[in-house]
Amino acid sequence: MKKGHQITMKEIAKKLGVSVSTISRALKDSPELHPETKRKIVEAAKEMNYQPNLLAQSLRISRSKTLGVIVPEITSHFFASCISGIQDTANKRGYNVMICQSNESIEQEKANIRTLVSSQVDGLLISLSRETNKFDHLYDLYDREINFVLFDRVQEDIPVSKVTFNDAGGAYQVTKHLLENGSRRIVYVSGPEDLYISKKRKEGYLRALGEFGVHQDNSLIKITDLTEAGNIKVARDILTMRPRPDAVFCMIDPVAVDVLTEWKAQEIRVPEDIALAGFTNNPTAAVVEPPLTTVAQPGYEMGKLAVSHLLDQLDGIASEDPISIVLETTLVPRKSSQHF
Amino acid sequence: MKKGHQITMKEIAKKLGVSVSTISRALKDSPELHPETKRKIVEAAKEMNYQPNLLAQSLRISRSKTLGVIVPEITSHFFASCISGIQDTANKRGYNVMICQSNESIEQEKANIRTLVSSQVDGLLISLSRETNKFDHLYDLYDREINFVLFDRVQEDIPVSKVTFNDAGGAYQVTKHLLENGSRRIVYVSGPEDLYISKKRKEGYLRALGEFGVHQDNSLIKITDLTEAGNIKVARDILTMRPRPDAVFCMIDPVAVDVLTEWKAQEIRVPEDIALAGFTNNPTAAVVEPPLTTVAQPGYEMGKLAVSHLLDQLDGIASEDPISIVLETTLVPRKSSQHF
Repeated sequence: MKKGHQITMKEIAKKLGVSVSTISRALKDSPELHPETKRKIVEAAKEMNYQPNLLAQSLRISRSKTLGVIVPEITSHFFASCISGIQDTANKRGYNVMICQSNESIEQEKANIRTLVSSQVDGLLISLSRETNKFDHLYDLYDREINFVLFDRVQEDIPVSKVTFNDAGGAYQVTKHLLENGSRRIVYVSGPEDLYISKKRKEGYLRALGEFGVHQDNSLIKITDLTEAGNIKVARDILTMRPRPDAVFCMIDPVAVDVLTEWKAQEIRVPEDIALAGFTNNPTAAVVEPPLTTVAQPGYEMGKLAVSHLLDQLDGIASEDPISIVLETTLVPRKSSQHF
Repeated sequence: MKKGHQITMKEIAKKLGVSVSTISRALKDSPELHPETKRKIVEAAKEMNYQPNLLAQSLRISRSKTLGVIVPEITSHFFASCISGIQDTANKRGYNVMICQSNESIEQEKANIRTLVSSQVDGLLISLSRETNKFDHLYDLYDREINFVLFDRVQEDIPVSKVTFNDAGGAYQVTKHLLENGSRRIVYVSGPEDLYISKKRKEGYLRALGEFGVHQDNSLIKITDLTEAGNIKVARDILTMRPRPDAVFCMIDPVAVDVLTEWKAQEIRVPEDIALAGFTNNPTAAVVEPPLTTVAQPGYEMGKLAVSHLLDQLDGIASEDPISIVLETTLVPRKSSQHF
């Protein structure tokens, strides 16, 4: 071990084979843990010469009254709504907000964290980049006792509070709606398969099919890289399938809008020839022709809840134990899925 | 005068009745000024015990490699594009970017400046809030020798560099296009009249009318507060006008989209009954039915140019004298304005 290296809770957790959250609770003498477990952890911490980060604690006394927010991209209407919710609520409680964009890059996400932490923000709200598949930078924040809350794009194992949507539930709702309108051969256009939302929305799609006794057919699951070119390729592929699918559920609205534009150019009628639905409820969904059936995700509400919880933690109102808040989504049925 | 009060260039400018820019040039011994003018200013500065802000200068030596950006709103696709241009360019040159939103409030804009300056950003890029009609907070930055560049929503008198669009030129192009397509009774739907873009776009609209020998009729200028309700009210008003206008040019795309939606509900055909055009080229403009004729403003380019100039100033590559960069816009003719 390097000289001068400061032992972290993560290292104690690793040595004892328990979670960081358990270490944290033991050192706080939480009544939720068995006394024997606590004793073992405290002893190990002493042995390893663990010292809580006093600097972090003292910094927390003098507040900068500033919060940092990291989102994958600001151009997304959804994240922009989250930011509005965060900022309105933070301002009301006397805090200002600085925002950084990771551009879906883990390196940029790390740089953003360094920048915001050295700007002495009181806490952070983070939605992870698409690339983030290692989490040391988050565990590092945790060890330094810097308060942060994850939202929308979260990592499930880190013992901090999270705010997410019921993605599977939303996909279930929209697929059920397509089934109720008579469709049986329903394509799911998924983003890259390792994305959390790709998986969760597929889960809901399959659950609805199962409930209606529709046999799962993997050839009906199409993957796009979410670029315009990728979306158009999928739109064309679908038209060559035999028998032709009678409905398409796209993982996010921008995909559905690209599919619709391509089909209109080919004089395919929506919903008469094929029904179409998206997910997110971007402003564009309401104004395309025909208007797009979709699932509304209240981004503003998500931002509001995430920042309220973070501020409650900073103010010592919220429990220090992490919680998970799951927001429900709402089906928005429009003309693109309904044969009149 | 308060004890310990530090004299600013603004105060010297006020006393001598010249611009802050002139004071700044004189103290830098710029060859552009008459020697006698310089002598007078240097004398006045000595008399008033002016001292350049050495702290600011020393801070500039140790860089945080972070820039601050303040925009009125992040949910606007246009400002989100500017931010992307700023961030991509800044990252390439080794800088990180923190973004704050003023929510169109001058108080929030001031708070954002305080937050970013106390975070020790190396420079700022600012687009002013709709409410900002006093500029002391900007002169204050200037006096503290903190580098900043204004973009899109600028104040013309402050002696710092600015990046703007040729708004009058864009409005001229689109109005000329409507005239060339045969329209003569053309409504201009303006935002609040004191907005810089309301004025500039009206200027271009009137110039095109004049060129085509169309008499200026003030009843054809309609004002919206830019809310959805305000836009719909204007859409309805226009339908009651006699004779009915044959074309409508809306100051920004969101207004045109609201007008289009209201008219479609009333079964007014665009462009057959009335031609319609917007300004901005939001993504929505391309996907509404019929697609909307508009004017493209390259937000990404604007962000890139603004940050490049700021970084050139920080690196001592750009001249210290402020410059004004004006970007041209491009007409995007689509179906909403063209009778086929």
